[in-house]
Amino acid sequence: MPDDPSAGLDALAGGAGGPGALGPLLATVLDALDAGAARRGGPLPAGHPGRIAALVADALAGAGGAEALARLTEVLARGAADPADPACAAHLHCPPLAVAVAADLAVSALNPSQDSWDQAPAATALETALLAELAALVGFDPAHAAGVLTSGGTESNLMGLMLARDQKLDGIVELDGLPAGVRPRIIASEAAHFSVQRAAALLGLGERAVVTVPVDRELRMHPAALERVLAETSWAGNTPIAVVATAGTTDTGAIDPLHTAADLAARYGAWLHVDAAYGGGALLSDRLAPLLDGIARADSVSLDWHKLGWQPAAAGIFLVRRAETYVSLARRAEYLNPADDEQAGYPSLLGLSLRTTRRADAFKIAVTLRTLGRAGLGRLVDACHLLARGAAEAVRAEPELELHAEPVLTTVVFRYRPPGEHDGAALDVVNAELRRTLLRTGRAVVGRTELPGEGPGRVRLKLTLLNPHASAAEIGALLHEVVRIGRETRPA
Amino acid sequence: MPDDPSAGLDALAGGAGGPGALGPLLATVLDALDAGAARRGGPLPAGHPGRIAALVADALAGAGGAEALARLTEVLARGAADPADPACAAHLHCPPLAVAVAADLAVSALNPSQDSWDQAPAATALETALLAELAALVGFDPAHAAGVLTSGGTESNLMGLMLARDQKLDGIVELDGLPAGVRPRIIASEAAHFSVQRAAALLGLGERAVVTVPVDRELRMHPAALERVLAETSWAGNTPIAVVATAGTTDTGAIDPLHTAADLAARYGAWLHVDAAYGGGALLSDRLAPLLDGIARADSVSLDWHKLGWQPAAAGIFLVRRAETYVSLARRAEYLNPADDEQAGYPSLLGLSLRTTRRADAFKIAVTLRTLGRAGLGRLVDACHLLARGAAEAVRAEPELELHAEPVLTTVVFRYRPPGEHDGAALDVVNAELRRTLLRTGRAVVGRTELPGEGPGRVRLKLTLLNPHASAAEIGALLHEVVRIGRETRPA
Repeated sequence: MPDDPSAGLDALAGGAGGPGALGPLLATVLDALDAGAARRGGPLPAGHPGRIAALVADALAGAGGAEALARLTEVLARGAADPADPACAAHLHCPPLAVAVAADLAVSALNPSQDSWDQAPAATALETALLAELAALVGFDPAHAAGVLTSGGTESNLMGLMLARDQKLDGIVELDGLPAGVRPRIIASEAAHFSVQRAAALLGLGERAVVTVPVDRELRMHPAALERVLAETSWAGNTPIAVVATAGTTDTGAIDPLHTAADLAARYGAWLHVDAAYGGGALLSDRLAPLLDGIARADSVSLDWHKLGWQPAAAGIFLVRRAETYVSLARRAEYLNPADDEQAGYPSLLGLSLRTTRRADAFKIAVTLRTLGRAGLGRLVDACHLLARGAAEAVRAEPELELHAEPVLTTVVFRYRPPGEHDGAALDVVNAELRRTLLRTGRAVVGRTELPGEGPGRVRLKLTLLNPHASAAEIGALLHEVVRIGRETRPA
Repeated sequence: MPDDPSAGLDALAGGAGGPGALGPLLATVLDALDAGAARRGGPLPAGHPGRIAALVADALAGAGGAEALARLTEVLARGAADPADPACAAHLHCPPLAVAVAADLAVSALNPSQDSWDQAPAATALETALLAELAALVGFDPAHAAGVLTSGGTESNLMGLMLARDQKLDGIVELDGLPAGVRPRIIASEAAHFSVQRAAALLGLGERAVVTVPVDRELRMHPAALERVLAETSWAGNTPIAVVATAGTTDTGAIDPLHTAADLAARYGAWLHVDAAYGGGALLSDRLAPLLDGIARADSVSLDWHKLGWQPAAAGIFLVRRAETYVSLARRAEYLNPADDEQAGYPSLLGLSLRTTRRADAFKIAVTLRTLGRAGLGRLVDACHLLARGAAEAVRAEPELELHAEPVLTTVVFRYRPPGEHDGAALDVVNAELRRTLLRTGRAVVGRTELPGEGPGRVRLKLTLLNPHASAAEIGALLHEVVRIGRETRPA
């Protein structure tokens, strides 16, 4: 045993010695993941959040030196909600593919940063090549498109709306500089992701700048309603700078009418951003891709391969149809992209991202796409879609459950509602409480949401089915568990 | 051999089978990292960027199925600029610790997402605990501070300025809603990171809202100049909403006068944001921590542990001194943080981040901090600082090199300048060209920057020394190489 207790603990992951130093540490991690999952024994740890926090605090207090990695990894696994467990089906939180996770290790070890070529020679070229493939997948002409990897749909939506603001307001983007009477507005459906409002606030437009369009039961924007909202916005003297169409709402997977949105955005001179963070996965499936017909007319698009793409977070993608519209971030930083270096052929991705240091998230996506191919990934999408259709049928067949709408992609929205008359507020309490019971007992992670509208009776449960290896029987058992706990929870 | 050629390629990283599926894939990655580094044979691949792009294109064209992981990992490693090589010393791009990379594997495999408790039970508790430790490291009272992990200093600076905007303009953050005569301004030094201007633009304030303060030779803000700029801004009827003090400029590591900045920000009612993305590492070292005296008076702080912290990207940290000022992002999303779940004790980090899906970057930091302790990390910081001081001495001893200023942290700014009279523009060309020659021949990744000011003679070279295992002899050899190539490059 060496004299210095910290000997070797500061070994680096790169260089000639890196793989040798990593080997035993990775074995430690795999053992600890195994041990932690065994102690958890289900989709999530049983117990109140306070209990999990106490386990973590204990591990942090007790872990030190060479033992820390094993001890903390075990508690992370023991206290995980594991999306690879079929009973963990709440969120757009996918179980990552082993091959994507392995590829991500290479990125952690080499640590390329995409903000300058000389921090990421191969990774810069690889991201550029991958984005061209993804642009083609969307239907953009890769020779004219541009894009960047992002932290997810929230960042991608922000970027789309930033470009819309800067294009449509002719560069007048100063709080104190807008001519009187110019009131920029963003049009999005009631069921669009809340990141649209967040982006509006961040961009200095204010949340009030988002004008919402009513949706149907499936949470799809009405074409006529979009037309009316645009007309009213315009009549009122406001400037609709962007239309956000959602291709795959978080709850129901509903896809807004993309051709209508493109026609109307063009008529009103607005930017069209398509938020396909979830529904973009349908592009991988021959069966489902037609649902996104029209997406190629968007000015910008969000895709998230950490949803239907089975990547560990983050694997967000932002694409624009015409590279020349991608101007807001052009910036010369002498230490990153001096002009004479660019003239000498050194490419720079700096002007494409909101970030400076940036992990090479493109790599795991490229490895996954090459390993499984579009067809292989499409089979995983189809498997999840079929699981959702089967789950909807099971809900319909169960008299104590109520289906909200047929699944569009891979989610099923429903609630516990035994036959008879019910008070909406009481049903809300029962559904919220039964979901917490499933969490507290460590039995299942079921989603919960509220439908747009006012008043009680809006709480719904939700299964977000992203595990292609889950079986219909496992999902059936999960629904039975919901019913069983629902009965126990039902007010007298 | 199974009939289905894709059998097993879609194995998941989580669940009971995850560690078993990962084992052989991780071995493949380590072998490919070894092979790729051997083929590279230096700090970066030799050749023009077009050659690296061709290697990547070949690998993407040839890789498929089970071979893709090895083939693409090898080309990523072959085409990497490896910060673990002592001759890779350009950027704040650190060689990550093996233990941090191993911890990051656990995060990729379990894929917790920090936007709701039920996607990350243990990871939520762990991030909260880690942030309290980091708040204490800065000198904030952990009981009153708040924070979040970010993608890096650029996002952290944006968050600080967003809070400043929303606090100081009393929530009037709509392009078309600001009362006439209110002209918000951000005060930062000429050497502050360009992300300050980017944030101003994104926030709708416009880049013009950033008023810069002159710096001294070391790139430190003059206290008197800050006072003058604040007074002038105020006299002109503008509203200084924020002062940004830099604790560790990218180029020289200079630290702005923090107490003065705090005094003046308070006098003018401005928010004080301290960008310690680089210099925050000094807090780990007993020797260097006094340089950051005053940081505890900031309203918000940026730290980046993917700089002086030896984490793979991203490991950004944003902290505020008083949690009650952290209000811009408070948001209820019924599917993520319903009110009754919070009342039932389910915590939510959603309102702390600009992102929704969010990787558990806190985990690798916590593991590293427990493995090495603050003292162990402080020794790494000190080692890099001593390397920089040694390098500065070597530069001073070499008649053909010119030192710009004494190192403050771990960077050395200098240029090739043989004795005699020189034209500034010609020297700029020589230095830029010699750096590209080092890149093209695969010999070294040396930094390059330009000093603030107008006209020729501003280009400088830079060593950013972040590899604690590099030796003074290795850095000496790198400087000799600069001189040798400089002689070849010198115009006749």
